[in-house]
Amino acid sequence: MTFDTVIANGTVVTASDTFRSDVGIREGRIVALAEGLSASAGPDTEIIDATGLYVMPGGIDSHVHLDQPSGEGIVMADDFDSGTRSAAIGGNSAVLAFCMQEKGQPLREALKDYHGKAEGKCHVDVSFHMVITDPTPEVLGQELPALVEDGYTSLKVFMTYEGLRLRDDEILATLDSARRTGALVMVHCENEDAIRYLIGRHEEEGLTAPKYHATTRPVAAEREATHRALSLAEIVDVPIVIVHVSNREAMEEIRRARVRGQKIAGETCPQYLVLTADDLDLDGLEGAKFVCSPPPRDKPSQDACWEGLEQGVFDLFSSDHCPFRFDDPEGKLNEKGKRTFRWIPNGIPGVATRLPILFSEGVVKGRIDLNRFVALTSTNHAKLYGMYPQKGTIAVGADADIALWDPRRQQVLTNDMLQHGTDYTPYEGMEITGWPVRLLVRGKTVMSEGALVDEGAGRYVPRARSPLTGSRV
Amino acid sequence: MTFDTVIANGTVVTASDTFRSDVGIREGRIVALAEGLSASAGPDTEIIDATGLYVMPGGIDSHVHLDQPSGEGIVMADDFDSGTRSAAIGGNSAVLAFCMQEKGQPLREALKDYHGKAEGKCHVDVSFHMVITDPTPEVLGQELPALVEDGYTSLKVFMTYEGLRLRDDEILATLDSARRTGALVMVHCENEDAIRYLIGRHEEEGLTAPKYHATTRPVAAEREATHRALSLAEIVDVPIVIVHVSNREAMEEIRRARVRGQKIAGETCPQYLVLTADDLDLDGLEGAKFVCSPPPRDKPSQDACWEGLEQGVFDLFSSDHCPFRFDDPEGKLNEKGKRTFRWIPNGIPGVATRLPILFSEGVVKGRIDLNRFVALTSTNHAKLYGMYPQKGTIAVGADADIALWDPRRQQVLTNDMLQHGTDYTPYEGMEITGWPVRLLVRGKTVMSEGALVDEGAGRYVPRARSPLTGSRV
Amino acid sequence: MTFDTVIANGTVVTASDTFRSDVGIREGRIVALAEGLSASAGPDTEIIDATGLYVMPGGIDSHVHLDQPSGEGIVMADDFDSGTRSAAIGGNSAVLAFCMQEKGQPLREALKDYHGKAEGKCHVDVSFHMVITDPTPEVLGQELPALVEDGYTSLKVFMTYEGLRLRDDEILATLDSARRTGALVMVHCENEDAIRYLIGRHEEEGLTAPKYHATTRPVAAEREATHRALSLAEIVDVPIVIVHVSNREAMEEIRRARVRGQKIAGETCPQYLVLTADDLDLDGLEGAKFVCSPPPRDKPSQDACWEGLEQGVFDLFSSDHCPFRFDDPEGKLNEKGKRTFRWIPNGIPGVATRLPILFSEGVVKGRIDLNRFVALTSTNHAKLYGMYPQKGTIAVGADADIALWDPRRQQVLTNDMLQHGTDYTPYEGMEITGWPVRLLVRGKTVMSEGALVDEGAGRYVPRARSPLTGSRV
Amino acid sequence: MTFDTVIANGTVVTASDTFRSDVGIREGRIVALAEGLSASAGPDTEIIDATGLYVMPGGIDSHVHLDQPSGEGIVMADDFDSGTRSAAIGGNSAVLAFCMQEKGQPLREALKDYHGKAEGKCHVDVSFHMVITDPTPEVLGQELPALVEDGYTSLKVFMTYEGLRLRDDEILATLDSARRTGALVMVHCENEDAIRYLIGRHEEEGLTAPKYHATTRPVAAEREATHRALSLAEIVDVPIVIVHVSNREAMEEIRRARVRGQKIAGETCPQYLVLTADDLDLDGLEGAKFVCSPPPRDKPSQDACWEGLEQGVFDLFSSDHCPFRFDDPEGKLNEKGKRTFRWIPNGIPGVATRLPILFSEGVVKGRIDLNRFVALTSTNHAKLYGMYPQKGTIAVGADADIALWDPRRQQVLTNDMLQHGTDYTPYEGMEITGWPVRLLVRGKTVMSEGALVDEGAGRYVPRARSPLTGSRV
Repeated sequence: MTFDTVIANGTVVTASDTFRSDVGIREGRIVALAEGLSASAGPDTEIIDATGLYVMPGGIDSHVHLDQPSGEGIVMADDFDSGTRSAAIGGNSAVLAFCMQEKGQPLREALKDYHGKAEGKCHVDVSFHMVITDPTPEVLGQELPALVEDGYTSLKVFMTYEGLRLRDDEILATLDSARRTGALVMVHCENEDAIRYLIGRHEEEGLTAPKYHATTRPVAAEREATHRALSLAEIVDVPIVIVHVSNREAMEEIRRARVRGQKIAGETCPQYLVLTADDLDLDGLEGAKFVCSPPPRDKPSQDACWEGLEQGVFDLFSSDHCPFRFDDPEGKLNEKGKRTFRWIPNGIPGVATRLPILFSEGVVKGRIDLNRFVALTSTNHAKLYGMYPQKGTIAVGADADIALWDPRRQQVLTNDMLQHGTDYTPYEGMEITGWPVRLLVRGKTVMSEGALVDEGAGRYVPRARSPLTGSRV
Repeated sequence: MTFDTVIANGTVVTASDTFRSDVGIREGRIVALAEGLSASAGPDTEIIDATGLYVMPGGIDSHVHLDQPSGEGIVMADDFDSGTRSAAIGGNSAVLAFCMQEKGQPLREALKDYHGKAEGKCHVDVSFHMVITDPTPEVLGQELPALVEDGYTSLKVFMTYEGLRLRDDEILATLDSARRTGALVMVHCENEDAIRYLIGRHEEEGLTAPKYHATTRPVAAEREATHRALSLAEIVDVPIVIVHVSNREAMEEIRRARVRGQKIAGETCPQYLVLTADDLDLDGLEGAKFVCSPPPRDKPSQDACWEGLEQGVFDLFSSDHCPFRFDDPEGKLNEKGKRTFRWIPNGIPGVATRLPILFSEGVVKGRIDLNRFVALTSTNHAKLYGMYPQKGTIAVGADADIALWDPRRQQVLTNDMLQHGTDYTPYEGMEITGWPVRLLVRGKTVMSEGALVDEGAGRYVPRARSPLTGSRV
Repeated sequence: MTFDTVIANGTVVTASDTFRSDVGIREGRIVALAEGLSASAGPDTEIIDATGLYVMPGGIDSHVHLDQPSGEGIVMADDFDSGTRSAAIGGNSAVLAFCMQEKGQPLREALKDYHGKAEGKCHVDVSFHMVITDPTPEVLGQELPALVEDGYTSLKVFMTYEGLRLRDDEILATLDSARRTGALVMVHCENEDAIRYLIGRHEEEGLTAPKYHATTRPVAAEREATHRALSLAEIVDVPIVIVHVSNREAMEEIRRARVRGQKIAGETCPQYLVLTADDLDLDGLEGAKFVCSPPPRDKPSQDACWEGLEQGVFDLFSSDHCPFRFDDPEGKLNEKGKRTFRWIPNGIPGVATRLPILFSEGVVKGRIDLNRFVALTSTNHAKLYGMYPQKGTIAVGADADIALWDPRRQQVLTNDMLQHGTDYTPYEGMEITGWPVRLLVRGKTVMSEGALVDEGAGRYVPRARSPLTGSRV
Repeated sequence: MTFDTVIANGTVVTASDTFRSDVGIREGRIVALAEGLSASAGPDTEIIDATGLYVMPGGIDSHVHLDQPSGEGIVMADDFDSGTRSAAIGGNSAVLAFCMQEKGQPLREALKDYHGKAEGKCHVDVSFHMVITDPTPEVLGQELPALVEDGYTSLKVFMTYEGLRLRDDEILATLDSARRTGALVMVHCENEDAIRYLIGRHEEEGLTAPKYHATTRPVAAEREATHRALSLAEIVDVPIVIVHVSNREAMEEIRRARVRGQKIAGETCPQYLVLTADDLDLDGLEGAKFVCSPPPRDKPSQDACWEGLEQGVFDLFSSDHCPFRFDDPEGKLNEKGKRTFRWIPNGIPGVATRLPILFSEGVVKGRIDLNRFVALTSTNHAKLYGMYPQKGTIAVGADADIALWDPRRQQVLTNDMLQHGTDYTPYEGMEITGWPVRLLVRGKTVMSEGALVDEGAGRYVPRARSPLTGSRV
């Protein structure tokens, strides 16, 4: 057997297994897992010594916003260059970004636009979820089915944000189209009308500081929308993904839906594990750095989310990377945002910190095991979104998308090391144990020791239909 | 002590007590509960011998539709004359009817209209809930507060029916107005968009028989809307009434809201105790007779509703009387309704049969006790809707609104005896034990042995704010 | 009409009604509720002016321990004299005390013993629950059925306390006997084995202060036993009463049992509304004053119990009066109790403070209404334990057991005013609004303004079977 | 690379992955997973062609009763020879059998006895769970800790069966010992006292047919014991395994415990997926064939158990193989058993049918995917019981315990093909798709095409502590 590369002496970790094995790579794919491969390596084989390291599938972050227009003069801080650069730094070999349909825009046109934004700028592999904001019969009946055939097999709908949110009849029509085409629907669950009602009451009372972002988006508004989305999916008879769940009550809705027999995937994010609403109450406008939706909650909610990761309420752990600069008139501290929380753009950076935080707080502290870490950060994303078995695992035949982890490396998080476009990280100063020291994408080393070593290696990945929709692997 | 009337030798039943006592009445009010009152009665005192009878507060039916326009050429089968006549036959001394705001119509104008419909035609006392269909800032900010001050202290919103249903932002605004004014809001909980989606799918598949009324309004659509209404009320921080609950899942939402600490009243109706969706599947179009919303469900749902009546999930047992003639081009079998269930008017008669059905199936069969019967059919309605202590009990000082019940009277229900405007009853042929043999309204005998003996005795009753909204008795 | 006594100008309160009415009393019974009775009173009629007062049924405390042997040289601080004296001070016209079977003792003999203890010493009416500690076939098959026929229609079993606790097979046999005879079974739900296990672990670690009484009797031990008792009752198919529930988890078990269709009554006590486990952690051994079982929990548990009182999880509010002197070698601070919490006798006084605490914290603070107060403190006890309609209400024909309440009277609780046998009250210094200023038992004034005015007026009351067991009123 | 054996051209399936790969085996272990291994195989390498086959880890059945004394002259139908032979036929490469402590017997002695029974007779690998029936301080404090050190790291306790069942104090002591030693405790959850009570009532009424086995072991008795076991584990703070769960209510207890934060594993068995209580009601005594505990329930319970397998309520799918001959005076139809169900020995055979039933009903019918199949039947058993990574997966370094599955092979189950010691299978005539056509144990082919080809190859496997107890892999 001949290999382009052999990763030697490491410990391979998959979503179910942990074992000592070398990894043989040829033409970008894993072709052998075996003992002693380096012995049989030829002179042209690159030997990477992984002694003391975990050899894991590269992270797949299936919830990333890049280069999206945010309206009102607000500019997203990452394009596909800086965003995928930061992803690579954090151990990710692929990201799924959103392709946002503008009102009235054909989906193909939106896709053309986003492919244009990504083209030649990506450092890790990329694929797209469609965001449906204008679900006309044309869009749902003609455009979407064609796109699903072409490998755009997932889409997202919003129940919040003016201009994005869909009404129930629109959600039903979208779910119905998904049922007919086999697309998988992600839902952002917060009741927009309830939030706007509360914003109105707050502003009436002069409550405008960043911390009121949290009190105007209470758990009840998330629980309500979660139950509603699940009920609409039940009525249409189609699986859905509940994204970025922040608390026990919304989790309980997922549990109840499963007891009713529904097929549901659940996702949570780092901000719900290590931040709380108190972070929005820092001095001055500092709290604006932590404004995202749903907002971080409290300590019992964090505990609940950890339990959900361990016990299978959640299948996915994503970043919901949605970066804005802080000290910037086009970012968090825009003119209107300084006056009231209503105008602070929603979203925080996180594509680089997702894996280290879960490893350090989850694996090192004994809350989840290594295999669950791999499942939550890579394998389940690949499977759920139709990239498996090409992506998401260390197995013969899979793309050689591999992160080498040093489980003992200690690091204090600083914004600089993350190489994203924002001027802050919400996790500044956090002490982390465990770090991705090298990243291979399709067999090529893209990142090593915190620096990109091969630029622009990322490619677009078309995807199969999700097995959750009925087609079992 | 002198009395106009003494009810002698009966057994008085209140929401908590059952005791042998005569009842002394003067000027329309109860002034004495005592032993041996007939002995001290003067020559002008009418003595009513109630030996072997229960002396109960007259029924109060707080959920009755009378003389409402139904659109599309459909005519409601009861006006205030026939509707309150039938109410009296069934042992009710008061009904709360709906005053339906038309789009764009000031509430005062709607009230003037309904007062006009009722004026001089009522045989039992009457009051009105407003139905808010057009919750403009003017309506919610100016009109409603004034009406609440004037004694119109409750209102209803619909989450279903095109033209009636409010969107979440409208419901929130209405709940907020209720919070500020102390009005009590009743909510019809079914997700209109989900229902329309299912109607579309059914009609696509050519499924148009009456029974598909039930399958297009599934439990999930009711559970969803129930949870949503409760969540919006939680967010606004205001009590609400969930009306006509039909099944265990919606009940569970009420229970959960109470565990969260919310103040919620619940209501169910006879159709959810003794009918099922199978009744909609009778030969030909016969099933149209049973079309109402939510639809009757199944046997386990009936059991659940019985438990809810006994255990306090439900505070109210109402008829949701909403009568349409069956064999009538302006009723159930209109031209469009014959073609598809979508156009069969929703609603069934029931103001006369409510009390006998609950007595016979509930009290006689041992599912609830006598006091619970009184609470569910009269006292709780009076209290919840601000008519207490004037109405709803047998107590010194209260209006002498009294039904004399013969607990042993056996009767087979026929449409004729009910004296409503419809040409059928969904309960035809049902065997009933226990019957109201005489009814007094403010001391006057209005009905005796199945016939009205005093016409037009009903009056309009203004109401105080509900204690559920915070003002305790 | 002639009366021995007329209570004039008061406001009568029952479990469902509140109305202005005079009350006419003859031969110890209420014979008239009417306006203007004092006008027709003869010269021999005592007129009690109740202007500004509530005329309520006297409290019935169905959970009171008096003159019970406590083993190990510990002496209960109240006999029937002091215990019923304190009950009268607190507005109670009847108490249900426990008659404790000793191992091997025939029930008749135990009853003879307790009748002897009570005879001639009671200041309010008294009845007995049997405590079954030795459920032999003879006891269950012969003795118990005979006693139920004689009016001893309720019994209690313990799942905790060495010497008292029954094993599951014994509980099942006892429930089965209850099912056959129509007796009602009360259950003290805590898992004795779990508690002893935890006591062992605590003592191993040298944790012996009074506060460890609470940590060795955790919520899980109460929840477990509650679910077990309910499951055994489900299997035998018999109703039961879950007494002195202290927390939300045990309440949830009651709710779940009801959803399964079981007939269950629930009880809570003042200690679970206003005390917490922190009270057991006072300086020195002061915490011993608050040692009772289950122990008071925390603030969320208090909130849960309040909700349960309002929402009907609980039917009964009792004292679980179980008094021991504090600074006394035969009481809380016995020699062994000073060394470790294990030997501190379990129980606190409360028969006098039950009604004032619920009135002040519940009614005055708006958590429950007046009628619910009467239901929880009197009517439901009378009904559930077969004393109704003789006891528990203000109705024609009922015993004139009446408490006159001044809803505005403000009082600071001190041990002295309670006139029980203990040297402390756990509620010392609590500010109370609302107080019983006069108490009639069967028409006779027994207590007035904090002092007994007629000694020894109490009588034994035989009881009918509970309607919960199937025989409806 | 050299191999003793290469499995070529198959599809490898693990608990998370499915991929085309050859498998290279050397000295009983898997040393390579790679493409094209057969090409590099030497002349001494056996090539097994697995074209069209799944290459899965051999089944591990962690719940098997072999050669246990059953008392009363009843003889278990399988010893280690026939039992492991049948296991091999059904695709299992290892079983975990029970080593039953007799009352008063030191655990070492019991182990010596069972090692003796197994020695030389096993055709697949074997390990032992201790059954603790006599938890003396000596057993728990001295013997058990030593055994855990020696690799006997799991034990089982019974809450039912006279002579086996432990009381709560004994369970607590056992759990406490497990907590201190790191042993993992399995619990059979049924309330023995409730069952005996119901048996008594049934026999009183002359109800003795086999079907009454099911009605005397109702869901409530299982739910109760499940909640109790979970609560005792919560109090001791130790993980447990709830074995052979049969219904939704018991599953709900597991869910609730996890929501409380407990670490719990759950198991179900084939009989709860494809049998119901109706099977116990066959003509004559035929129903005796299906007598096992807990009994099979009904169709909704089957659906619930399927959901639990898919959604992760259950981690383990085991057989609870407990074989008795049917038409045999030492088996099901013993003299006393013919008279009443009470004496029919509890248990059914199933070690051979476990995998085929789950594959055919689960994988082929689309209820679970292939990876979940492997997790439920092999990997999770190995991990939970400390045999991983030696056993339970196809990974470099693991024992070459491999089942080759033909997913298209169709088979009608007959008793003959199963080669166990009983004279029947409860699944006679069932149509199965998918079958294990070859089995390797540590690299040696033990079974091929329904016949053993290498006898006595099984060895005893000592085990590490379960990671559920805290030590993560």
